[in-house]
Amino acid sequence: MSLALIIPDRKLDDLQQRLAQALPDTEIEVWPQIRNPAAVEFAVVWKQPHGSLASLPALQAVQCFGAGVDAILADPTLPALPIARIVDPTLTDTMVRYLDGVVSYYRLRLDVFSAQQQQKQWKPKSPRKIAHIAVLGLGELGAAAATHFASLGYSVTGWARTPKQLEHVSCFHAAEGLTKAVADADIVICLLPLTPATQQMLSEGFFSSLKPGAIFINVARGDIVDETALQAALDNGQLQAACLDVFCQEPLPAEHPLWSHPAVLITPHVSAVTDVGAVVEQIAENYRRNQRGEALLNPVDIGRGY
Amino acid sequence: MSLALIIPDRKLDDLQQRLAQALPDTEIEVWPQIRNPAAVEFAVVWKQPHGSLASLPALQAVQCFGAGVDAILADPTLPALPIARIVDPTLTDTMVRYLDGVVSYYRLRLDVFSAQQQQKQWKPKSPRKIAHIAVLGLGELGAAAATHFASLGYSVTGWARTPKQLEHVSCFHAAEGLTKAVADADIVICLLPLTPATQQMLSEGFFSSLKPGAIFINVARGDIVDETALQAALDNGQLQAACLDVFCQEPLPAEHPLWSHPAVLITPHVSAVTDVGAVVEQIAENYRRNQRGEALLNPVDIGRGY
Ligand SMILES: NC(=O)c1ccc[n+]([C@@H]2O[C@H](COP(=O)([O-])OP(=O)(O)OC[C@H]3O[C@@H](n4cnc5c(N)ncnc54)[C@H](OP(=O)(O)O)[C@@H]3O)[C@@H](O)[C@H]2O)c1
Ligand SMILES: NC(=O)c1ccc[n+]([C@@H]2O[C@H](COP(=O)([O-])OP(=O)(O)OC[C@H]3O[C@@H](n4cnc5c(N)ncnc54)[C@H](OP(=O)(O)O)[C@@H]3O)[C@@H](O)[C@H]2O)c1
Repeated sequence: MSLALIIPDRKLDDLQQRLAQALPDTEIEVWPQIRNPAAVEFAVVWKQPHGSLASLPALQAVQCFGAGVDAILADPTLPALPIARIVDPTLTDTMVRYLDGVVSYYRLRLDVFSAQQQQKQWKPKSPRKIAHIAVLGLGELGAAAATHFASLGYSVTGWARTPKQLEHVSCFHAAEGLTKAVADADIVICLLPLTPATQQMLSEGFFSSLKPGAIFINVARGDIVDETALQAALDNGQLQAACLDVFCQEPLPAEHPLWSHPAVLITPHVSAVTDVGAVVEQIAENYRRNQRGEALLNPVDIGRGY
Repeated sequence: MSLALIIPDRKLDDLQQRLAQALPDTEIEVWPQIRNPAAVEFAVVWKQPHGSLASLPALQAVQCFGAGVDAILADPTLPALPIARIVDPTLTDTMVRYLDGVVSYYRLRLDVFSAQQQQKQWKPKSPRKIAHIAVLGLGELGAAAATHFASLGYSVTGWARTPKQLEHVSCFHAAEGLTKAVADADIVICLLPLTPATQQMLSEGFFSSLKPGAIFINVARGDIVDETALQAALDNGQLQAACLDVFCQEPLPAEHPLWSHPAVLITPHVSAVTDVGAVVEQIAENYRRNQRGEALLNPVDIGRGY
């Protein structure tokens, strides 16, 4: 029995070593050099090549190396097995700090002052009045972000699929709740998972339901957003600005117009990257649980897609 | 008896109206249209034209409209009168939030990602490791900033003229304490007042005493810094970046090389602008105290210069 890491394009020495330490009796294999595919019972996965999981005949469980399992579920050859995701206070904290910094960036008009600097223009302005922040998705990350901004004194609304109760956050849910959640927001943050229900969900109708001049931040998945509608909303001023960490295609192709849109800040999918040290014990524990035939920690509802 | 506002280049309707409400029996005059100079006993001042205070024969006290009195004291014709400054939780909070946002900007590498965006480059990087922040000046603003960053978990050192005790901040003082305060800092924040002792104090020797690759933030006064030495430290990489809100000459002249330095973020002296609503009662109270012959709130030590 062994554990396989199927995480292309990332140095895995550290993860491999730490897992070997945590699971001394288990062989840690690293894709694509898997010596004994028939022995792999547990796979730790991020953006696996389609077919790679199906090629492991003894596989019993899949551990996603991050929070979002959309790329795992997109594999048409995915075996019907339990999937677990990462839930980690360090990851949550990283995301909240990213969002906090980006909200401050806009509040302090650093976007405007950077643009003025390029023109050598000295035009003092007081901070943007950002009173109301809406958070779409109130799961592990969204709930933490919403609560954080509420604790700073912002008026915060949130939106999820099902009803929620969060302290100092006005929660809305289901399709009919979306407009109410965002109608008055100065900043809208997307922290939804990418699922069949959310794919391309934030499109023209959504952007026109925002307060004119709102700011949009997407740290979830690019494919939740209709990028053409987003660009149109930026062009016509319905959106004042957007900070985008995720895109329909990543890396964002050099010819994509979003790169050079003056109202867009692009970060290259860095808002909350899994910290190896923080999650290794959670992964090892799920490996042990699977060995003992117990349910995994932080299981994903495959039908729902998150 | 009357009160005069001597605050060029700022709309004063709001301040005038609110002071008139707070002091219903007092005439509020606005420079340069002072109808009865002989009746002015109290002046509220920001960057007053030199000579304007000396032209008020009955003047008894000067209220600075902000925290820093350097521009008031620079007037060679300044009458020898008590001077008060603003101490205001709103102003302090504004400064701390500015600094918090700028530290996050650097922590999240928004400077780097903005530059990469201009090149259409997708190069993910983890946040900058910012562990240690040094704050120069531990007065109203510096102490609040130091305490804030300590509360967020940063290791914080501070530096002042005299010994200080601040919770979770390692405090150093006097000329010989400066090197110790900054030696290990990833970010150095200047919150000193501009005085004869601090003028051009942060020069070549200071920058070379920093940790290579440190980031420098100046929100105090431009003239505390030798801008040529600053530019050299940026050019040779001793400083990785600088965020500058204040300059020797403001507005920063269009031909100044700092405008286009790739490692510099310029904001046009906006980090903490006095909020009229927040300070009007403090000004009115000092007016009343002066009328009653009492000592002013928040007096400045004119000999020291702050
Ligand atoms: N950019 C990055 O570096 C990065 C890092 C980590 C995560 N992410 C992304 O962030 C996403 C969110 O993470 P998470 O851990 O907070 O997810 P989560 O715990 O699974 O929570 C998802 C939230 O979205 C809500 N939701 C799902 N489908 C919905 C729908 N159709 N309509 C309305 N609400 C819906 C859920 O509502 P219910 O609670 O009612 O079910 C839940 O509140 C991840 O899926 C991932 O794609 C990005
Ligand atoms: N950019 C903006 O928008 C903005 C807004 C507000 C203020 N400011 C600037 O910020 C400055 C600081 O404000 P503040 O209210 O914190 O001032 P403050 O209360 O007067 O405190 C000044 C601090 O600097 C220290 N200091 C003075 N001279 C020194 C020297 N020669 N060596 C070492 N330390 C020295 C003092 O030490 P001791 O305590 O030991 O005396 C004190 O801790 C103001 O003077 C103003 O220029 C800028």
